[in-house]
Amino acid sequence: MPPRSVPESDDIAARVRRGEERALARLLTGLEDGESWALSSLRLLRAPGREHSHVIGVTGPPGTGKSTLVDKLIGLYRERGQRVAVLAVDPSSPFSGGAILGDRIRMQSRLIDEGVFIRSLATRGRLGGLSRASAQCSRALEAAGYGIVIVETVGIGQSEVDIARLADTVVLVSMPGSGDDIQTIKAGVMEIGDIFVVNKADREGADRAVREIRSMLEMGASIAASAASVAALASAAAPAADAAHREFGTQLARSGAALQGELPPVLKTVAETGEGTADLVAALDSRWAKLEGSQALEARRRRGAMAEARSLLSERVLSELESLEGGLEEELAARIVRGETEVSDAADLLFESIRKGDSR
Amino acid sequence: MPPRSVPESDDIAARVRRGEERALARLLTGLEDGESWALSSLRLLRAPGREHSHVIGVTGPPGTGKSTLVDKLIGLYRERGQRVAVLAVDPSSPFSGGAILGDRIRMQSRLIDEGVFIRSLATRGRLGGLSRASAQCSRALEAAGYGIVIVETVGIGQSEVDIARLADTVVLVSMPGSGDDIQTIKAGVMEIGDIFVVNKADREGADRAVREIRSMLEMGASIAASAASVAALASAAAPAADAAHREFGTQLARSGAALQGELPPVLKTVAETGEGTADLVAALDSRWAKLEGSQALEARRRRGAMAEARSLLSERVLSELESLEGGLEEELAARIVRGETEVSDAADLLFESIRKGDSR
Repeated sequence: MPPRSVPESDDIAARVRRGEERALARLLTGLEDGESWALSSLRLLRAPGREHSHVIGVTGPPGTGKSTLVDKLIGLYRERGQRVAVLAVDPSSPFSGGAILGDRIRMQSRLIDEGVFIRSLATRGRLGGLSRASAQCSRALEAAGYGIVIVETVGIGQSEVDIARLADTVVLVSMPGSGDDIQTIKAGVMEIGDIFVVNKADREGADRAVREIRSMLEMGASIAASAASVAALASAAAPAADAAHREFGTQLARSGAALQGELPPVLKTVAETGEGTADLVAALDSRWAKLEGSQALEARRRRGAMAEARSLLSERVLSELESLEGGLEEELAARIVRGETEVSDAADLLFESIRKGDSR
Repeated sequence: MPPRSVPESDDIAARVRRGEERALARLLTGLEDGESWALSSLRLLRAPGREHSHVIGVTGPPGTGKSTLVDKLIGLYRERGQRVAVLAVDPSSPFSGGAILGDRIRMQSRLIDEGVFIRSLATRGRLGGLSRASAQCSRALEAAGYGIVIVETVGIGQSEVDIARLADTVVLVSMPGSGDDIQTIKAGVMEIGDIFVVNKADREGADRAVREIRSMLEMGASIAASAASVAALASAAAPAADAAHREFGTQLARSGAALQGELPPVLKTVAETGEGTADLVAALDSRWAKLEGSQALEARRRRGAMAEARSLLSERVLSELESLEGGLEEELAARIVRGETEVSDAADLLFESIRKGDSR
């Protein structure tokens, strides 16, 4: 196969702006591969001052019917003439996988519709779910003029925190459980949900699942009054705590405060038959009506952008480490293991080396 | 309450060396709180060239009986006269919690035994499980002369990756499931297990659970031959990928290679009655006999130390960010949201600012 030529960034941007799906697909592939021409195209494509799309994150445990639900959402938005893009992020490990591919094939019925753009992003066995590329791709889809951008991912590991970062609205999907409903939504994840959906609600236990989610949310609201002060205390007590965790604590306090006002809706759907999906769209509409153009949306997106920039910065720092003179990192690691150096001292040394630019 | 005086680092180190449990408890509290005197004590306490303890990570989903299992392990090691320290890391969110406390109370029967030291670490609602403190505390317990250091944590989110970093041996605990056994161990987590335990093996489905774990491990071994090249390809294709993910990929390839030699043991236990727990100790002994003093142990610990140093370095960089002149980060975030700057460009700017030391 001859090497593919590098496309002109302004050409790709112009073609995407004209609505050429092939150019958009090419751009997303470029972003996924970390190509610099793709990044340049994205820069050109994003126009200051343009309207925001509603970026909707859909997440939840495997098997809860997220893809079918997304398929119904596409249909409902299309009936109203809105253009919809779907980014399906697959965090499956080498040991799992497969299920999502089936879902994608099901969704391909939408591929002939020009108002719909569907794209899978494989996270290539990297633990942690959404990658750098998904945030960039989501911005590209917004810039390409899709008013609705749905980012769908299986709730595994870090992916829920990542999706909370890039989405304006997070839909947490669960289903009636087998006696242990409280496990259907993982501890520590409730906080990111803006809308809760109990899918497969024709199964036994749906009402109980709704009640349990509501009571968990109410419990959250009742502790919300103290959440802000708890977060402040925690960050005072652990100043060196991982910044991402601190950020999460702040986010938690913020969402806690938000909860004090109004509990997020908890809806029942049967995605297979479409039951309840119109209510979900109504809940999304109602949320977007409040968010669009608001200070709250700006603040949420700023927080997400900051978190993303910090991730990229960390990557940059770590790649710098690898080029440090004389394998300093390996030497320090050996000293730590021998008990000659403590890890925090090694980290300080590495920081100073990076600052001085001791790279090869 | 009058402010507690800051203890002398060399005094604490000396007292810990003499076996004073109260001094050790004080040290761990200091490390948990990020106190500089505690770090100095740890530096003094860690003696170059001393024997390594066997650091055993015990992890798995909630409700699989990890604490009871650890309790039995303590008993068996104590019968042989070995000193055992347990670090119980609680990654419970504000929405869950409670269960672990009960477990701790059960384990308190061990508190009167001087050869046993048990300590809980609350991760304070920070998502991600094990904190910086747990690695430091684990080293402190090793330096205090406990030959067996058990780090127990509920397998949520990032905690499995963290435990793989600090433990010499990871015991992955699961239990017979209700029809969906493959879910009892999360996708992407199989790779970190050195010993697999199906606890509550008196329940129906235990043999099936063992078979499923074995077949997953065999599947892993059969793809191990290509794992190294896959990881190399992935890192070539995504050079800017999150370093932690790349590290994980490398680790995966390594463990894949390890799997080619010998599959990790899969054991059945009934912790409540003690059934099978002697076999678990035997498996741990056999692994330690191979590991102790080996190149493999050194390499594993060096990898862990490097990953930990990188985490601390990232924290350091992010805390530096917060002191950047004129709130550069906030300004960039606002520019990103307005579409005037791409996130990767913002990250580059932040990197240069940190390098130049543009702090207040």
